[in-house]
Amino acid sequence: MKINIVILGSTGSIGENILDIVRKDKKNLKVVLLTANKNYKKLIQQAKEFKVKNILIYNDKYYEFLKVKLKGRKINIFSRKTKLNKILKKKVDYTICGISGLDGLKPTLDVIKFTKTIASANKESIICGWYLINKKLKKYNTKFIPIDSEHYSIWNLTREYSNNDIEEIILTASGGPLLNLPIRIQKTITPEKTVKHPKWKMGKKISVDSANLMNKVFEIMEASKMFNFDLEKYKIFIHPQSYAHTIIKFKNGLIKMLLHDTDMKIPIFNSIYDKKIKYITSKKINSKTLNNLNFFEVDKLKFPSVKLLKKISKKNTLYDTVITIANEEFVKLFLLNKISLRQIVENLTKIINLKECKKYFTKKPTSLSKILKVRELVRLKINGISV
Amino acid sequence: MKINIVILGSTGSIGENILDIVRKDKKNLKVVLLTANKNYKKLIQQAKEFKVKNILIYNDKYYEFLKVKLKGRKINIFSRKTKLNKILKKKVDYTICGISGLDGLKPTLDVIKFTKTIASANKESIICGWYLINKKLKKYNTKFIPIDSEHYSIWNLTREYSNNDIEEIILTASGGPLLNLPIRIQKTITPEKTVKHPKWKMGKKISVDSANLMNKVFEIMEASKMFNFDLEKYKIFIHPQSYAHTIIKFKNGLIKMLLHDTDMKIPIFNSIYDKKIKYITSKKINSKTLNNLNFFEVDKLKFPSVKLLKKISKKNTLYDTVITIANEEFVKLFLLNKISLRQIVENLTKIINLKECKKYFTKKPTSLSKILKVRELVRLKINGISV
Repeated sequence: MKINIVILGSTGSIGENILDIVRKDKKNLKVVLLTANKNYKKLIQQAKEFKVKNILIYNDKYYEFLKVKLKGRKINIFSRKTKLNKILKKKVDYTICGISGLDGLKPTLDVIKFTKTIASANKESIICGWYLINKKLKKYNTKFIPIDSEHYSIWNLTREYSNNDIEEIILTASGGPLLNLPIRIQKTITPEKTVKHPKWKMGKKISVDSANLMNKVFEIMEASKMFNFDLEKYKIFIHPQSYAHTIIKFKNGLIKMLLHDTDMKIPIFNSIYDKKIKYITSKKINSKTLNNLNFFEVDKLKFPSVKLLKKISKKNTLYDTVITIANEEFVKLFLLNKISLRQIVENLTKIINLKECKKYFTKKPTSLSKILKVRELVRLKINGISV
Repeated sequence: MKINIVILGSTGSIGENILDIVRKDKKNLKVVLLTANKNYKKLIQQAKEFKVKNILIYNDKYYEFLKVKLKGRKINIFSRKTKLNKILKKKVDYTICGISGLDGLKPTLDVIKFTKTIASANKESIICGWYLINKKLKKYNTKFIPIDSEHYSIWNLTREYSNNDIEEIILTASGGPLLNLPIRIQKTITPEKTVKHPKWKMGKKISVDSANLMNKVFEIMEASKMFNFDLEKYKIFIHPQSYAHTIIKFKNGLIKMLLHDTDMKIPIFNSIYDKKIKYITSKKINSKTLNNLNFFEVDKLKFPSVKLLKKISKKNTLYDTVITIANEEFVKLFLLNKISLRQIVENLTKIINLKECKKYFTKKPTSLSKILKVRELVRLKINGISV
C-alpha cells in the first residue's frame, strides 16, 4: 500500500523538499493533493510531474486562471472555497503543511479531519493556534509531527517520555550572521546582509528572525505548546555549526544529543516514514566535524530578544498572536528599511508591554476569527505608530 | 513491590556502586543475595548494613571462616558448591555481575535461570562465553543489560532498532595516559604510571588495557557479541573527555550521541529501573563542558592494538578466549615488570597468529569446560615462552 500524501503549500521550500523525497520513492509514496497560493506555474508543473489528480489554489484570481490553463486535462482544480470532503473521500496517510505564516492555520485546521498524520513547520500557526489545532488532533485522532529540525529532534528523543522524565532541553541556535559582529552593527546593517544566513537557506522573514534570535524565542514558544514540558526546562545554546539540533538531559543522568546534516529534508523524510528507518543519503560520522563543535550561552546584550522568554506563557492565549504578529510587522518595516534590525526587538518589547496588548494575556484563542482579529488590531496599531 | 536484587561480586567496585544506589532507595530496592570471592570482612559488613539474609563465598577457606564468624546470626552462608535453587526460591527481579575476568562466567551462567534481568560488565565472560550466556538467556527468558558505559549507551540508543537500521556505531576511548606521549615511552613506562587513568578510576588490569587501547578492542568484541550489528559498523574515536560514550548514525540520517558524567553509577542505576526514569543526581548540561569536546581517529602507530580488530569475528569461537587470556597473561607480565607495555600487543599478535592458536577460530565454545581448557592451554603456552 502506498503512503498517500497531501502537500499544503507545495510550491515553497518545504513543498519542494518533500516532492524531492517522493521523486526518489515513487514506489511507496503518492501525492493526492497539492495546494498553493499564487504560484500556479509551479503548481501545474508539479501536478504534471507527480501525476497528481487534485490541485487547490487559494488565490481566487489564479483559480480562474488555472481552470482555463488546464482545460481538458484530467486534473481536478479546486479553490479555497472547496470543502475538503469533496476532494478527500477517506483519511490520507500523511499531510505536510509547508505554508508559512498565520495563513497556514486555516488549511491546517481544515485538513486534520482528513489525515492520519500531519507534519508541520508552520511556526506562526502552531504558536497562535495550538489551542485549536490540538483540540482537532484529539477529536480526529490525528498524529502531529513537527518538522523544524529542533522540534523534530526533541520529538524524536522524547516521544516515550513525560515532563517528569526530563530535566533540561537545549535548543541550538546558529547565532546567525551577526554573532561575531559588534552590537552597533545591528543599528546599521542592511536587510540584504541580514538575510544571508551562514548555515540554512531560508526565506527573508525567518532569516531576519534568525539574525536577532527571535526565531529561537518563537521556537521555544512553539515547543512549549506542542510538548508537555515545563517552559523553564528550555534553554538556548549558540552552536554555530548547526549540526546538533537539540540536547536533552533526562532525570536519570543520561544526556542525548541529536545531530544531522543541516538539511531540512532529513526531518521531513523521517516524518513520512515515522518509526520505520528508511535510508537517506547523508554524511557519515566524521571526527573532524565532531571535533571542536562549539556551544555557548547567549549574550543577552547582543541578543535582547531572548529576554522576551520571560514574557511568554505555556498557556495558550491571544498574547501569543500579539507577539507573533507584532514581530512580523516590525520585520516588514525593517525589510523596507524603515527601522533598524536592533529596533525590531526594541519596538516589539514596547508594544507587547502596552496595556491594550497585555490584556490578551488572559484571553484564550478559542476561534480562528479571534486570532485573525487580534492580527488585524496589532497590524493597525503598528502601522499607526511612529517608529 | 520491592525490586529484589542479587549482587555477584559485591565487594568490588561495581558491587559498591550498586549498594550505594540501594542505600539511597531502600524503599524500592532489596538485596537478597551477596557473593564474594575472598573479601569476607567487607561481605559481612555489607550483609549487616543491608540486612541481607543470604551470602555466598566462592573461596572454600573463607567459607569455613565465615561460618565461624557469623555463628548465631540469622544470615545464611553458602559456598561455591551450593546450588542456587537452595537459595532462590523464585526468580529475582535483577542480578548484577560485578565479578571481573573469566571467573564471572560460571556464576553468570548459573544465575540466569533465577533472575528476570541480568546486568553485567564482565567483559571476559561476555567475550568468551556469550554463546553459552545467550543460549541460557533465551531458554529462561532472561533480559540482559550491559552496564559498561559504552555498551549501556549503545543498548539504550538501539534497543528498538535492528542491524538494517544502523549505519555506524562509534565507541569513544579516552585515549588513556599515553595519548599525548611519544610512542617510545611505551617501551619504558612503569606499571605504576600506566595504571593512572586520567578519567576513570579502575582496577590495574583494565587500566593497562585502557593505556594501550586493548580495552576498546575488547569492547568492540563484546558489543559484536551482544548486539546484532555487523562488526564493520563499529569504529573507535578518541575522546579524551570521556563524556560522550557512543555516537550512532542511523540510516535515516539521524545521529544520536549519548553522554553522561564519567561515573559508572549512572548506567548501573538505569539498568535497575530499566525503562522507568528515576532521578539520579548528576551535573546539568553545561555549555563549557560541551564546548570543544574532542573526537579524533586512532593513531594506529601509537595504538597498534586496534589492528587486532581485523583478526576478530562476529561468530562465537574459542579464538575469543585465546585473545582474551593471552592478553591477560601479557598484562600480568607487564605488571610484574617482565615485559614492556609496548610488548603486550606485540606478543599478543605473535601468539594469536600461531597455528596452534588459530585452529580455535573454527571451534565453538560449546561448554564452560572447553573455554577453561583453552584458558589453561594459553596460560601454559605463554608461561613457557620466552618473552
